[in-house]
Amino acid sequence: MSGLFISFEGPDGAGKTTVLEAVTKTVGAQLGDQLLVTREPGGNQISEAIRDIILNPENTEMDPRTEALLYAAARRQHLTETILPALRQGKVVLCDRYVDSSVAYQGAGRQIGEQAVYDMNTFATNGLLPDLTLYFDVPSEVGIARIKAHRQDDVDRLDQEALAFHKLVRAGYLRLRDAYPERITTVDATQPLNTVIQTATDLVNQAIANR
Amino acid sequence: MSGLFISFEGPDGAGKTTVLEAVTKTVGAQLGDQLLVTREPGGNQISEAIRDIILNPENTEMDPRTEALLYAAARRQHLTETILPALRQGKVVLCDRYVDSSVAYQGAGRQIGEQAVYDMNTFATNGLLPDLTLYFDVPSEVGIARIKAHRQDDVDRLDQEALAFHKLVRAGYLRLRDAYPERITTVDATQPLNTVIQTATDLVNQAIANR
Repeated sequence: MSGLFISFEGPDGAGKTTVLEAVTKTVGAQLGDQLLVTREPGGNQISEAIRDIILNPENTEMDPRTEALLYAAARRQHLTETILPALRQGKVVLCDRYVDSSVAYQGAGRQIGEQAVYDMNTFATNGLLPDLTLYFDVPSEVGIARIKAHRQDDVDRLDQEALAFHKLVRAGYLRLRDAYPERITTVDATQPLNTVIQTATDLVNQAIANR
Repeated sequence: MSGLFISFEGPDGAGKTTVLEAVTKTVGAQLGDQLLVTREPGGNQISEAIRDIILNPENTEMDPRTEALLYAAARRQHLTETILPALRQGKVVLCDRYVDSSVAYQGAGRQIGEQAVYDMNTFATNGLLPDLTLYFDVPSEVGIARIKAHRQDDVDRLDQEALAFHKLVRAGYLRLRDAYPERITTVDATQPLNTVIQTATDLVNQAIANR
């Protein structure tokens, strides 16, 4: 049985992380230790140290390309230390954010070029993309409203960005979806949470059955 | 008067840093505060934090591509915070190591691909290359012998690499020299130190006169 790599993507407020937790329970009950659920930086020492630099609120001078390179460095280390070993063992890997996040957030959101960020990440990943990406789509007004309602106790530098930034990010995701229709499947994240969870669970189970 | 960007490059033991110090004294006496001498990470908070991750001897699991991305991230920040402002003020910037170091050390030395490392660094620098690069060339046996003789109290992870690694790095530099003959000028670093210093000083003064 070969490994299977599925990423969960979407702008802030799409509910992707909540959905991933629910999917993990259902799919984990079937797969046991053959399921790995992870997110960057993934707990390795190097990526965690990189993340600390990115999220340190004192680092106000950080250039957007520096930020993109740091995310790619953390991604590379997470890939080699966590994702690749699991895939080699034939596991199913569900990953909260991957290359598409950098293309949408840094490339489109910070406007440093989506293709340039994609190409630079190809260096970081050696071209390894997920077998399937679930993109949780939500209009920016809805996403921002959800962030404000639910995350006031957990606001980091990225969450403080304005609606305009969210719109740029979402537009980047929509272009990715159009550019990679075979890899990226869109889930309408404005639906009731239980519907979104059921849809995502079905898509993951389908991919597992078809591998 | 426009700015001028000159990088100093070479494998370990070429004496490049010693030469740069001597050149700085001579050229600095003429230019005063119109000369900026710098080296990555360049003293900014973000690049220093990145350097700490790269050189932390506990980070034994670091993937070569992670390392290359981290160097590029530190380079980007040094460029935006230090080099570009100085060039915009019309200053002469002498920089100890730049993109060529990553191509030679990570691309050739760690064998992850010289063109791939070059392209990734083009993202980091937005394509900004030095007006002139002085490449201090030394055979690997000579370079390694100098390191052993002079730096026993200052050995970091890179200096511990073997002669084989040094040869790969030097071969990478020689290919860069051949690929970019208009930008890169070779200085024979096996000559007596005073001769090397005089040659380098003349080349820098010539570039300043011709800008």
